[in-house]
Parts: sequence; C-alpha cells; structure tokens
Amino acid sequence: MASTFGTLFRVTTFGESHGKAVGCVVDGCPARVPLTEADIQPQLDRRRPGASDLTTPRKETDTVTILSGTERGLTLGTPIALRIPNADQRPGDYAEMEAVPRPSHADFTYAEKYGMRARSGGGRASARETAGRVAAGAVAETMLAAHLPVEIVAWVEAVGDIRAPRPDPAAVDRARVDATPVRCPDPETAPLMIRAIEEARDAGDSLGGVVACVCRGVPAGWGEPVFDKLTAMLARAMMSIPATRGFEVGEGFGATLLRGSQHNDPFEARPGGGIRPASNRCGGIQGGISNGEPIFFRVAFKPVSTISLPQPTVAFDGSPVFFEAKGRHDPCVLPRAVPVVESMAALVMADAFLQQQVHRIPRPESES
Amino acid sequence: MASTFGTLFRVTTFGESHGKAVGCVVDGCPARVPLTEADIQPQLDRRRPGASDLTTPRKETDTVTILSGTERGLTLGTPIALRIPNADQRPGDYAEMEAVPRPSHADFTYAEKYGMRARSGGGRASARETAGRVAAGAVAETMLAAHLPVEIVAWVEAVGDIRAPRPDPAAVDRARVDATPVRCPDPETAPLMIRAIEEARDAGDSLGGVVACVCRGVPAGWGEPVFDKLTAMLARAMMSIPATRGFEVGEGFGATLLRGSQHNDPFEARPGGGIRPASNRCGGIQGGISNGEPIFFRVAFKPVSTISLPQPTVAFDGSPVFFEAKGRHDPCVLPRAVPVVESMAALVMADAFLQQQVHRIPRPESES
Amino acid sequence: MASTFGTLFRVTTFGESHGKAVGCVVDGCPARVPLTEADIQPQLDRRRPGASDLTTPRKETDTVTILSGTERGLTLGTPIALRIPNADQRPGDYAEMEAVPRPSHADFTYAEKYGMRARSGGGRASARETAGRVAAGAVAETMLAAHLPVEIVAWVEAVGDIRAPRPDPAAVDRARVDATPVRCPDPETAPLMIRAIEEARDAGDSLGGVVACVCRGVPAGWGEPVFDKLTAMLARAMMSIPATRGFEVGEGFGATLLRGSQHNDPFEARPGGGIRPASNRCGGIQGGISNGEPIFFRVAFKPVSTISLPQPTVAFDGSPVFFEAKGRHDPCVLPRAVPVVESMAALVMADAFLQQQVHRIPRPESES
Amino acid sequence: MASTFGTLFRVTTFGESHGKAVGCVVDGCPARVPLTEADIQPQLDRRRPGASDLTTPRKETDTVTILSGTERGLTLGTPIALRIPNADQRPGDYAEMEAVPRPSHADFTYAEKYGMRARSGGGRASARETAGRVAAGAVAETMLAAHLPVEIVAWVEAVGDIRAPRPDPAAVDRARVDATPVRCPDPETAPLMIRAIEEARDAGDSLGGVVACVCRGVPAGWGEPVFDKLTAMLARAMMSIPATRGFEVGEGFGATLLRGSQHNDPFEARPGGGIRPASNRCGGIQGGISNGEPIFFRVAFKPVSTISLPQPTVAFDGSPVFFEAKGRHDPCVLPRAVPVVESMAALVMADAFLQQQVHRIPRPESES
Repeated sequence: MASTFGTLFRVTTFGESHGKAVGCVVDGCPARVPLTEADIQPQLDRRRPGASDLTTPRKETDTVTILSGTERGLTLGTPIALRIPNADQRPGDYAEMEAVPRPSHADFTYAEKYGMRARSGGGRASARETAGRVAAGAVAETMLAAHLPVEIVAWVEAVGDIRAPRPDPAAVDRARVDATPVRCPDPETAPLMIRAIEEARDAGDSLGGVVACVCRGVPAGWGEPVFDKLTAMLARAMMSIPATRGFEVGEGFGATLLRGSQHNDPFEARPGGGIRPASNRCGGIQGGISNGEPIFFRVAFKPVSTISLPQPTVAFDGSPVFFEAKGRHDPCVLPRAVPVVESMAALVMADAFLQQQVHRIPRPESES
Repeated sequence: MASTFGTLFRVTTFGESHGKAVGCVVDGCPARVPLTEADIQPQLDRRRPGASDLTTPRKETDTVTILSGTERGLTLGTPIALRIPNADQRPGDYAEMEAVPRPSHADFTYAEKYGMRARSGGGRASARETAGRVAAGAVAETMLAAHLPVEIVAWVEAVGDIRAPRPDPAAVDRARVDATPVRCPDPETAPLMIRAIEEARDAGDSLGGVVACVCRGVPAGWGEPVFDKLTAMLARAMMSIPATRGFEVGEGFGATLLRGSQHNDPFEARPGGGIRPASNRCGGIQGGISNGEPIFFRVAFKPVSTISLPQPTVAFDGSPVFFEAKGRHDPCVLPRAVPVVESMAALVMADAFLQQQVHRIPRPESES
Repeated sequence: MASTFGTLFRVTTFGESHGKAVGCVVDGCPARVPLTEADIQPQLDRRRPGASDLTTPRKETDTVTILSGTERGLTLGTPIALRIPNADQRPGDYAEMEAVPRPSHADFTYAEKYGMRARSGGGRASARETAGRVAAGAVAETMLAAHLPVEIVAWVEAVGDIRAPRPDPAAVDRARVDATPVRCPDPETAPLMIRAIEEARDAGDSLGGVVACVCRGVPAGWGEPVFDKLTAMLARAMMSIPATRGFEVGEGFGATLLRGSQHNDPFEARPGGGIRPASNRCGGIQGGISNGEPIFFRVAFKPVSTISLPQPTVAFDGSPVFFEAKGRHDPCVLPRAVPVVESMAALVMADAFLQQQVHRIPRPESES
Repeated sequence: MASTFGTLFRVTTFGESHGKAVGCVVDGCPARVPLTEADIQPQLDRRRPGASDLTTPRKETDTVTILSGTERGLTLGTPIALRIPNADQRPGDYAEMEAVPRPSHADFTYAEKYGMRARSGGGRASARETAGRVAAGAVAETMLAAHLPVEIVAWVEAVGDIRAPRPDPAAVDRARVDATPVRCPDPETAPLMIRAIEEARDAGDSLGGVVACVCRGVPAGWGEPVFDKLTAMLARAMMSIPATRGFEVGEGFGATLLRGSQHNDPFEARPGGGIRPASNRCGGIQGGISNGEPIFFRVAFKPVSTISLPQPTVAFDGSPVFFEAKGRHDPCVLPRAVPVVESMAALVMADAFLQQQVHRIPRPESES
C-alpha cells in the first residue's frame, strides 16, 4: 500500500523525475462535485519550481490533465486520473549519480531496498513526487468545499533560526501567505527569511525550517479511533513528505513543559446552545477526534540535502570522493512545501469527512 | 480501519474499560514462531497500573490468554487472538461522567462523533486500550527475534522541564531503563524526575514529558515509499497513542536550525566491504527507508488530563460546574508509556520486515 | 488480510477447533444500534452441530459473549469482540491426523503453505471457523435492520440430484425454511432430501448440494464498481465458505443458454413514479450495483470430505494407508450451511450499505 | 476500494469510454523485472475490438504507454502507471442514452447510485474498463514469469448451447486458442460456434457462453485463509468482469451430484519424494490453498445486453419507448473475454505469490 493513502477518499500517486509523467488516481470522490483542471492548477503552480528566485530554476510547467472521472465539469463518482508530464526529462549524464550515493538522499537506501541502482536514485523520495499529491489535494479541497466551508492554510513559520510570531489562526489566508515569495505571512519576518535563504544559497549551502498549518471549519466528530486518530493520520501524512523530521499538534513538544492544570481545555456554553472548548491548547483534536475548533499543527523540515559545497563521502564501491551537486537547486524547500502540507492535510480531512458519514445515518424511528 | 494497524502484520485491538475484556487479534504472523503467554506477559506487566507509587493504584492483573493461533508453543500462521480481562470493572456511579465532559478527555468529541454519551466516555481513547497494543507488540517482537536480532528500547527522556542527557543508543537496554520506577536510564536525572512527579501528585496536578526510543539491528531497506515511509508509519503509530502531542526523528525539530552542510550524513567504506552512513543525524531513516543504523525518535506526551484540582468547566447541558476527578490517577503517564512506545515501534518494524520480503525473492537465473 | 472482510463494516475472525475459542471482532458498526447476545445467539444455534439427526453429534453449545463494543444494550461505534468457547476441545490422539493428510481436506495444503503439520490440520479451513462469521453476520443483520427493512433468507435447494422447485422469492422466510431439519422450504422435496442424507450416512458416505439465497429490501444503488461489485463481493464471500465449489447470480450458468432478447430486463414505470426493472433475470444486480429488486444467488457445496468409508491414500511420508474417519460426522453440510450463507450475505450488504452513504451526502445548495 | 484489487500486487484501474484515457497503476511489483510496452501490448491486442468479424468494429488501437515505474527496461519497484488513450471518443449525440436507460446495462443502477445521469451511462461497467485490467494482468504475468514458470490459458468452452469437449489442461496453449477467431481450441466445435455467433448477429441478437481457464505451474501453498482463499479471490476477480453470471472451480456445480467417495482426491507418492493428489477434482485448490496441480475454473457470461432488435421499455421519465441500439456491437463477448479472464487470474496469482513470501522466510537456525 506504499503509494496509496486513505480509506474512502483514496489517492494513489505515481511517477519519478525520469519517467514520462507523474500524477495520481483519486478513487472515492463522491459524484456531482464541480471539478475541472482550473480547480487543480493553482495549487500546482504554487508548488512548481522556478516560480521565484528562492527556488530551483528547473523548468516544469506542471500542467495537469484530467484523464477520467469527470464529465461536463462534474465528477462521476469514478476514479479521477490526473497526469502531469515531466517536461524537463533530462536524458543527460547520470553516470556519477549511479556511482555515488548522494549524502542524505535516498539513493543508498533505495539501492539497498530494491537491489538495483537507478538513474532516478531514490526516485519516489524526490520532491517531484509531491506534484501528484498536490493535484490530489486540490481535488480533496474542491470536494470538501462542495459540502462545507473547510479552509486549510499553511505558511512558513521558521527558516533556520528565524521564527515568525504566530498569526491569528482564524484570519491567516493564502493571499497573505503568498504576499512574499518566502510564504511567511508576517511582514516583518519575511524579509529576514528571504535574506537568510539568499545568503545560504550564495554560500552553496541550504536551510531548513518549520511550516505551520491551520484547518478551519472542521466540525466536531471527525477522526477514527484508534489507529486512524486525526493526530495519527496527520502525522503520517506530514511525515510522508520528503525532508520532514518532526510533527507536533497544538502546543506540541511545548505541552510537555506545562502541568495538567495549565494545559487542560475546559468547556464553556456556546451562545446558541451546546458547549465548546473554551481554550484550544489541544490544537482542535481530542482523543484523536476533532473538537470543532481550528486544527493546528507544525511540521519540521530538515535543510535541503542537495548543496553546492563539496562533501567528502564515498562511492558505492567505497572509494573516497568529493561530492558536489551540479546545477542549481532549492536552497530552502519551505516555500514550496506550503501547498504540499495543505494538500496532505486536505487528503486527511477528505477521508475523515467521508468516514464520518456512517455515524449519522438517518434511522426509521428517531432515537436520542 | 479505525482499529486495525498494518498491511501484512495486521493488528486489530478491541475493548473499553467498562466492557468484559480488552485485547487484540494479530493476523499475518508467520507460522513456526515459538510463542506462549510467557512471551507476552512481561511487557503487559511493565504497562500495568499499580506497579509503583508513581502510577495509579487501579488494580488490574492484566493476565493475557492466547485464544487461538498457536499449538504446542508454535504459531500456526493463523490469527492470534489475545484476551485480557477487565478485572476492575466498576459498575459504580458514572452519572457525573455522563453529565459532564471531562476537560481535555475525549468524552465531548466521542459524544459528537457517535451521537451518544457512554459511561465509558471516550472509551477507546483511554490508556486501557493500549493493553491490547502491548500484547500485540510483544508478539511482533517475538516474531522479529525469531528471524533477526532486532532490539527496541524506549525510555523516559524528560518529565516536565527535567531532561536527561541522551544515553548511548547502542548500549541502553530495558534493564537499565527499569532500574528506577520512572524508567529514565540516567541515574542522576531519575531521582529528580521522581521527585517532580511526587510533587505534582501531591499538588493534585500532573506532568507530561518525552519518551525516546531506539530500534537497533534493523537492516537497510525497510520501509515503503511513499505514504508508508518508516518515518510516516512510526509517526502514525506514536501519534495514535493517547496523550501524544509530537513526534520527531533523528535531530527532529533541532534539524531545522542546522544547515545542509551541518546536517548531511556522508558515507564511509564499511570495513568488511560495502558502505554505510558515517554519521546518523537522520535517525536511521533516509527517504523513508532504513539505512542500517539505529533508528532513533522521540514522542511528546502532554500532562495527564485527569487531575484532582477542581476545574471550572460546564456540563453537557451548558451549566457551570467545578469538575474534580475522584480517586487517584497517574500523575504522569510517562513511565507506563515506555512499553507502549516500544510496542508500537515493534508493530511498525514487524510490518516493514514482512513487506520487505517481496523485494528479494530468489530468481531462476541470477540478475545483477 | 486473510482473516478480515469488508471495507467499512470490517470483520476479523479467529480460532481453530483445537484452541480455546473461536470468534471475531466487528469494527465499523455504527453507534446506537440495539445489540445484545440475544440478537446473535439464534443464528449460532441454527449453525450449531448436533441440532438434528442429520448433523454431527459433536457437542458445542456455541454460547456467544460480547467482550466489548456495547454498553447498556447499544453499540458504541467501537470494535465489537465476540467470543465462542470451544467446549469440545479433545486433547486426544491426533497422531494419525498428523501422519496422514485427510483426502480432500486442507491438511496437505496447509502443511505446504506454513511448513508445519498441526494437530488442527487445515484448522482455519474447518467448518468451526464459520461460527465467528455467523456471529458477525448476526451483528450485520441487526445493524441493517436498525436502518431499513433488509431481509436475507437462504435455503437448501438441492441435495445431490434431488432439487426443489424455486420458491416465491418474495415470500420464503426462515420459519418455512426451518420447518424441516434439512432446511428445504418445499414440503414435498424435503422428505426426499432427508431420506437421501440418511441413506448416504448409513452407507458411510456423504452428499453435496446447492443453497439458494434471496436478499429483499436492498434499495437500488448498493455495490461499488469495479472490483467491489455486489456480484464480485457476494462471490468472494460465498466462495470463502468451506466446501463451496460454485456461485451463480440470477439465471447464472443458465443465462449462457439464452439470447440477449430473452435475457434482457426491460424497465417499466413504477406506479408511484420513477421506474423499475420489469423482470429480474439479472438477480437484482446490474453492472455490479443493486437495482432495487430482490437479489438472488446460488452456492454449490461439494459432498463432505470426511466419510467413514475406507479410502486408499498415502501418508505424508508416502507410505500407502487406508484412511477411515473415526467417529460420526455430518453426512451433508447443507442444512448447517444455510445460516453461514445468510451471514456472509449480511456482511456484504452491511458493507455496501455503509459505503453507499458517501454518495448521498447533503450539500449546502441543491444541485441537479 | 472500488477500483483497487490486491493486497501486495495492487492494481487500480481508471477510465470511462468518454474520457481521455483508460489505464491503471500497478503498485507493489517487485524491482528488477524486465518490462517494456512490448510485454503488455500483445494481450491488449487480443482484447481489442475490431480484430475479427465476430467483434464490434469500434476502432481502438489500444496502444499502451508506460508512464512510470521502469527504467532501461527494468521495473523500479515503484508504481507502474499505464495509459491507453481513448482513440474513439465520440462527442456525438448521447441525448437518447441519457433519457433512456438501456435494458440490462448499468445506466439505471449508476444513476440510482450516484444521483446523476452521465453520457457514459454506467461507464465503469463497460467493457472498455477491462483494457486497464488486461494491461495490469500482462505486468502480473511478466512478473510471475521472472520468478517461476506459471502459465495461464483461458479459452471459450461454450457459446450458447454449443459446448466443446474439455481439452487436456496440461497442453492447451494460447496459440491453439487463437487458431480461430472464436478462441475455442477444439477444431470441430469452433466452426459451429462461429456460425452461431454470425447467425445471432444477423438476427440482431446476441449470445452468451462459458470461458474456461487453467493456471499451470502454481506451486502448493498459495492462497490465504479465510476470506482470501484462492477460490474466493478468483471468484471475486471473475465476477467483477462485466457480464459474468457464474463461477465454478474444479467440478463446480457438477460436484453437487457426486458422493464424497466419488469426489474426494486421495494422495499418492510422488516419484522423486513427497506426495501429491492422485486426482484433481478439486481443481487445484483445497481449503482455499493451491495443491500444486493445475488450477481449473469456469466463468459464465450472459448474452450481450446491447442488441439491435427493438426492445419495449421505458425512459427515465417512465414514458414507453422502443429501444434499439444504434451502430454495430459485439454479438458475443466471449472471444474478447478470454484475455480478460487470463488477466484477472494473473492478478490473483501475482498477489498470492507475493503474499506467500512471508511464510518461508529464512531463519537464523534451521527449523523443521
């Protein structure tokens, strides 16, 4: 089940950098959802390399085509296949890559796993694979939006040791996030981050950082005990993104420094009736199930492994080499990771939404 | 698939505190693995409440019975059903619990999800459910041990703001971990943690902390791209444990503060031939696949939600109440979480081990 | 996934004849369904051996206990574990069974699969395993009945070459089926079948036959294209029952003898509005999806493999022996197979019902 | 999971007649299997319409492209995406089809399921969808052939009431099957079948029939108890093919007419050591697990629903109409069904093969 995600809203991605296309099949999207390529392309454009000075200039137009599953702009309820051609297939010289496993890439572990060395190295571990996820995530967002006002917004919270103050989770939106190429919605911090990235790029080095994400409009009750808790599925979704090293929800690791009396979320009466958590330190999820408040989490990304600085390492045959990445690469993956985080969150929410349908089926006679 | 974990080594847990039993069914364990209750009971005993002053005195003997799947001390290859009776079923007064959702418990979210209030509250979100996981994890460890020398050791790294230095991941073992009731292998730090827990308990409050875990002896090549990366499955496994708030692997969130040139793991020649990572900042997993080095990760646990201090909150009907937990409870879940973390890690590793079998099937003629 | 059935209404069975218990875990049953042991026991009693002269006198009371998943007579939405003790565990002499694979049993194939010979032979291939399915099927029927008037009725249509006329599928019910111990609702045919079974039993031989089944009250729209068509899932469900050799739906193999103009089902206007199939040669399923008419299918059971007549065969070591089954056994499995067929049909329908919920989710604004 | 088949060798198909392409993603194929389009195209050509006078002249070249998962002619272990363009997309007038549900097609049930009427009617129930399965089946056959000499051969056994004698299951091969356009390997019967199909075609009517299939070279031990028995998975696989109405294995429904003493398969010593079934009435599967002998089964196909004869029926709005299919269609689907049956059998066997790997993992110390 390596390349499939979800129980009811099921996404299977495919493709390596060196094949003809990447893409995905979305199975389980309900019928009668308005959907065309125009719903999908914008998020792909946000993920696309070459969009700003901060990212790799590798040129991919990343134009998506819907191969199946829609008719006259509506989903049919059948599998939606999405194809994104690899425009920038470089048949060039990968001899070196086959001889030397790039440090901190997946070339070595893929070779150990599959018993072969491929030009594409750890091809499915490459950022290129995330194009299929982003396309699927856009379908998920479109499907959710057809039913209820769920909003998912991610942004760059930290680059290296430069950290932005937490924005109002009820107000941050994609327009504000996209106001600068670094996708940090804080106008004071964004320029500092940009400068740090440029400095690292010029030094032939790279930076990591933290992406934060909020999901608004998720009603209480989503998520399945035990192993499919929302926390668990979000963690799996995020930690499946290349270069991720950590995940936390609500107060996260910071919660370990609080006492129960400080961290607990009491309830309060809701004006129109019913109750709600008065605070939301849990980040919108309790016992693995959404509590109706905004869901909030963070994802740690390591610094990009591909750097121009020469690195002493060894080839597959054990001979010492200095590895030096050719061409230009992303000095910091964070800005482009923002739509990927949103997309994976959308896949988790779409699946949780569909799974929750079985718990509120109308009955012949009313029951309490 | 809420209560099932794994693709080939599949575990389904069942049971609430208020039913007759908790337990699990393990499907997919290979045949001819030596297995009796004696292989399972020790980890259950480590998880069991009432084992020390630091934990709740709720009495459960947690005696496991193998209902199926073995014969004369060997697994049959068929489902292994494990039952652990709920000795301490208290038919007592839960009227209050039904009227008032406990702050930061799952009573509210379960009621929203299922449309009913149960005496057992968010029953499957309770720590009691983890008994089934620990039983299954012991089967996984036994199965792995029958094939190769995998060792999984977890320990308490931090309680509140008291943090132990990182032990030698190649040497830390369960005997050292169990040397103190707090399960911190550092002899200087353990007494400080114990004192902090006692202080919080006496104050009617609770503490959180961090559990660290190492998996030794995992060969390179385990883990499946894309969504079943080892990082992703460990994250899901850990974040499905009650009270978890964060997960990190290798340098984790700390990696975001390093540059690529500082964080990258170069390779070196292995004495007997072949190559290996010279450093292991990635925590044993690259591109989602094990690299042959120890796998290292951390899990953040929030402070226990059940505290004796009165908490202002509201009942389900919105009327204000002061909620005060009756009886005594764990002031800190960390020591008992240690075998749970180990068990979930064992489930991930057992499944990855079985899945990896298909990649090295012998062929009629040899291929490179 | 060997022992698990279903996508949303998921059943995992466990147990061999020689272990402590058989049973199952039902995960995915919605909450608030009235359910106690009294809803499950009757179908188990119909499956139980020793209920009539026509079946094996092996004594099993088959008393079911709900271990989890309910509270005060209502399901909680959490896993329902059901346990049925093996009362008749005979620790006696199975040395012969271990030395000689019983002809047409699974002793040989299990030994080849798992690399070991067990006292329980092909334990999971035994009829005893079906107790867990019948318990799960009763839960499925109870869940369905809480939502809509689905009725599932199976009966014995043929024993050897004695075949009953097809009853009115709209009228046949379990009371009529149980009127005779052979469970054939046709009063003329039933005595002939009983006599044939008695004759075979007295000859130390066995008989096979055909079970037919109708599912009434299934609305149009259930079943999932492509691989989870209702036809496909019913076929899988039925062909997973021990001793089955064939499955057909509607006109079945008989349809191959008709022309399109004879077999096609035209539509007619439904009195209250809408349309419906005017005939139902397809057996209630078109394109794998229910059409609102009764679903009708048949299952072929081979003659019981265990016979008293001596059979020339060889031991595992190749030495020739005459195998002669000890004790008394079912000379014909058909009457006891009736509740098993119903149960498997109920599992298919329960899962299809839950899966169909996602296709009719209410939307904010109405769409065509 | 509607459109996904398999646990380890997982196939997801996509596409309707009216979209841009059909195809599939194969996830779980081991690495280092030699695979190019040339391994896949031949089976697609056998399935393709327009290949003989007996099939619809709808023109589809059905040219397959591998989008991902291979490099330099070897599989990478990653998802293999296969795309087959819909060359014959007719944007023409489907107004009638939307107004009138075709008798015995899935137009009505799809409309009931999804709440919408599509130009493509029950698009995923169309024969076009099977192109993706055949492409996947060819990958499965190629993967199996890289490991062991499994051979899968299907043929037309009956067309209407014309039935061929059973060929030698050890000798029948695809060359003999393809010797006539009707794909019946019996030279006497084939011309009779052809004449019958031509006669039905000229009468504007259609015929059904039976496809038989043998799988040779499957070692003992494949198949998983309980719900994934080989019998169960073959039944599901076959009954998921459009127009199927029945499935039987070994003696099938005929077994119900035999006594245990007639139907049982005793064992005999195998010349080189070990034992084997002396007869194979069970069709190569016992207790759901392969016994090392040829696996033999039959599939019943109803007569094609699309006929030129006018059929009295009603429109979706209930108004009476005479439905008359435009254009020319397959008067008998049987010849083209042969590679589809083979492909679905290949998917079942590939998955069973991979799943069986976990039962024979080498251990550190030898065990019996």
